[in-house]
Amino acid sequence: MMRGRTIWWEEGGVGLIEQTLLPEEYREVVCSDVHRLVQAIQRLEVRGAPALGVAGAYGVALACKIALEGPRDAFSRSVNEAAAMLRSARPTAVNLAWGVDRVLSVVLQESDPAEAAARALTCAESIADEDEETCRRIGSHGAKLLPDDCTVLTHCNAGALACAAWGTALGVIRSAVEAGKNVRVISCETRPLLQGSRLTAWELSRDGIPVTTIIDSEAAYLMQRGEIDCVIVGADRICTDGVFNKIGTYMHAVSASYHQIPFYVAAPRSTFDPMHRMVDIIVEERGREEIASLFGRTTVPDAVPVVNYAFDKTPFSLVTAIITEEGLIQKPFDHPWLMP
Amino acid sequence: MMRGRTIWWEEGGVGLIEQTLLPEEYREVVCSDVHRLVQAIQRLEVRGAPALGVAGAYGVALACKIALEGPRDAFSRSVNEAAAMLRSARPTAVNLAWGVDRVLSVVLQESDPAEAAARALTCAESIADEDEETCRRIGSHGAKLLPDDCTVLTHCNAGALACAAWGTALGVIRSAVEAGKNVRVISCETRPLLQGSRLTAWELSRDGIPVTTIIDSEAAYLMQRGEIDCVIVGADRICTDGVFNKIGTYMHAVSASYHQIPFYVAAPRSTFDPMHRMVDIIVEERGREEIASLFGRTTVPDAVPVVNYAFDKTPFSLVTAIITEEGLIQKPFDHPWLMP
Repeated sequence: MMRGRTIWWEEGGVGLIEQTLLPEEYREVVCSDVHRLVQAIQRLEVRGAPALGVAGAYGVALACKIALEGPRDAFSRSVNEAAAMLRSARPTAVNLAWGVDRVLSVVLQESDPAEAAARALTCAESIADEDEETCRRIGSHGAKLLPDDCTVLTHCNAGALACAAWGTALGVIRSAVEAGKNVRVISCETRPLLQGSRLTAWELSRDGIPVTTIIDSEAAYLMQRGEIDCVIVGADRICTDGVFNKIGTYMHAVSASYHQIPFYVAAPRSTFDPMHRMVDIIVEERGREEIASLFGRTTVPDAVPVVNYAFDKTPFSLVTAIITEEGLIQKPFDHPWLMP
Repeated sequence: MMRGRTIWWEEGGVGLIEQTLLPEEYREVVCSDVHRLVQAIQRLEVRGAPALGVAGAYGVALACKIALEGPRDAFSRSVNEAAAMLRSARPTAVNLAWGVDRVLSVVLQESDPAEAAARALTCAESIADEDEETCRRIGSHGAKLLPDDCTVLTHCNAGALACAAWGTALGVIRSAVEAGKNVRVISCETRPLLQGSRLTAWELSRDGIPVTTIIDSEAAYLMQRGEIDCVIVGADRICTDGVFNKIGTYMHAVSASYHQIPFYVAAPRSTFDPMHRMVDIIVEERGREEIASLFGRTTVPDAVPVVNYAFDKTPFSLVTAIITEEGLIQKPFDHPWLMP
């Protein structure tokens, strides 16, 4: 793994950490062809909106590298086909298509295949660099909000594993630690898919940042006990009146408000959607099996339905501040990024 | 299974539903000797405070039945030994010892073994009957609180499987259904041990009461969506200033208060502890493995600690009413049962 990156370019292709195996096994995978990278995206070996953008970008660079070995007149067609395949690996992931298209546009501007391939790689690398730079700027703005000695509660994984590196919510924590603050993290396990216990706990522990895992429903009780100083989460989409994020986020926001604990959202500008209010967005409902079975065992009777919303909605009234790469957005939340 | 009972007496011994196998398998177990019953208690094949009281009572009756087959002069010693073994099967379960001792005192008053055995069984049956009667009275008082058409959220299992029959929180729901009301139930899965998805969903579904399972962190979002009319939970202990119940209860109470949804606790008088305030009680912390592994798979990195409180504390300020067998206890919560 390169410089703390969770997805990277190497001689053999696109390298990544196989996230489905964590925490039981740490395995780096090198995708030496586009089919393997598409599979990695579909199997959630790599996930997280910014990370998928980087994966798509490197994927087009990989397609160029492979097409260089074929006939010169097939280069463009070959790269275009690969790009289409990458783009549709997870059709609802806007960052993935964005990363693919940004590199593809560079490729299409260049008539010489070797030169196009070189420029594609440069573009992909710069997308990864930008992602890390954005996270570090979010981290720097957010770190100032944390007391010198504090316990931060987080939910799901808005960390290095969801980006190229550093992370958004976890980036704030990393930047605070880098600035010399004593930060302890409470990571909610995040049912149903356990990104909090499997991924957040893993990446913070690997960095030597003190982290403890709890079940999601324990958070309010720790707040009652006075053991939480603030909450920091990421975001999947920020509308003009509130934040969509992993299911459970809203519950933490309500509890934080009740206990008068600051509730922060860390997210880059690309997460902002100034064209919609929350009510306009349909919340994805995911499959029964995520709740009703665990590692092959049935935990809900077959006759009993489940409701499995992937995200919930937190109104700005419960948000203390949004931490972005350009600074804080706070009450009354009338920032230009939130204006249609 | 007898008349909807989840633990009962039959010719061969003490019958019970093997709860650890639910919902994948429904299996009735007959414990034909005291060792097997002790094992069932220790393995949580039977659990729930009132159910353990009934198990202890039937256990002494079973010990008498077996001792009758031995020499007459060994009867008392044999029954006493069995009682001690039962009492210590789960030393922190006060109801278990209470059930054992209540039947044992009857046995010790009778010099004729056959007569003692008969009286033991009568006493045990009356303890089971009383438990069901108490639940039905709680149900009757609570049912009046529910709208004619409503959705009730519950947490963990305060149902027939935790009692001899009917249940406390689920008893209120059963009584409301019996009274002709349309009640739908949202059962929170209740991490870490999933009593909500495994047991509550199973027993309500078996009774034909509409029940849907969600993850615990989804409850607040359903309240935001206006899909929950009230919350009903059981209790492990009610002190002079609040309620101890399964971890996650407090989170639901905070969310219910925020959304102005009634929050009810259903519990018999035996749950009241007028000698203590909440601060006096140490909350049990349970083992790491309940959170860190699932069906043999590791979900938390080995280097990462967990905090696993079994219960949390809900102050009366968040409780709309306590539903008991003698009626409601409400603000200002100055009922004699709460006075030292």
